[in-house]
Amino acid sequence: MGAIAVIETDLSAVYRDCIACLNGQDWPKLGQFVRDDVIHSGRRLGLPGYLEMLERDFDDIPDLHFNIQMLISDPPYIASRLGFDCTPKGTFLGLPINGKKVSSSENAFYEFRREKILEVWSVIDKAAIEAQL
Amino acid sequence: MGAIAVIETDLSAVYRDCIACLNGQDWPKLGQFVRDDVIHSGRRLGLPGYLEMLERDFDDIPDLHFNIQMLISDPPYIASRLGFDCTPKGTFLGLPINGKKVSSSENAFYEFRREKILEVWSVIDKAAIEAQL
Repeated sequence: MGAIAVIETDLSAVYRDCIACLNGQDWPKLGQFVRDDVIHSGRRLGLPGYLEMLERDFDDIPDLHFNIQMLISDPPYIASRLGFDCTPKGTFLGLPINGKKVSSSENAFYEFRREKILEVWSVIDKAAIEAQL
Repeated sequence: MGAIAVIETDLSAVYRDCIACLNGQDWPKLGQFVRDDVIHSGRRLGLPGYLEMLERDFDDIPDLHFNIQMLISDPPYIASRLGFDCTPKGTFLGLPINGKKVSSSENAFYEFRREKILEVWSVIDKAAIEAQL
């Protein structure tokens, strides 16, 4: 029965807690959701590299906030459509934003292992941002 | 029991058949997979508009082929990561490709109703293509 309980973990709830951790910039908790050997879009960032990426994102975009617009769960996979309304200070994805408020979406796929993110494949809608500049 | 059978339809299999229809440019069959009132990235294209979009894509990219790299099923939702290795003739996503072979990915989310696509939210990795030019 113990094994069944593990299989039936609500991965959606784990993912929502992970996004709350990011939005709260609660970095000491990040390791509860992200594996030490995490891979992001083909690069083995590891937990320190993943944290560095997130800290840089929040430094570049002080009002960054991830809104889960759609959440598709098929353990061990999660797919999430994240919405943004934010104000990057300078460039973002190579685009000169310079304090303009922009909206976009990110379609992200995650593979979990034991309730932690093992790998991420993410695409941000750059064309949607360009259309607003 | 009839209702249960409908609920348990393997939506992944339906989706794979839909992608095979696209890859085969088997347009008379498109209406088996796409609803008459389909919405694509916020625009109510309808089946004729959806077909027009696909025909234009295949005209602009003669060797277009959708490879399903990841498929996440949580009925009535499907999330699919599609890979491309293709050769757009001219511009694609506003980028001057002009016959160069490029690789990219598309992270697409679909909502189905009665085994047909009702709505699509899709993001193509434009930054990945720019990095190859």
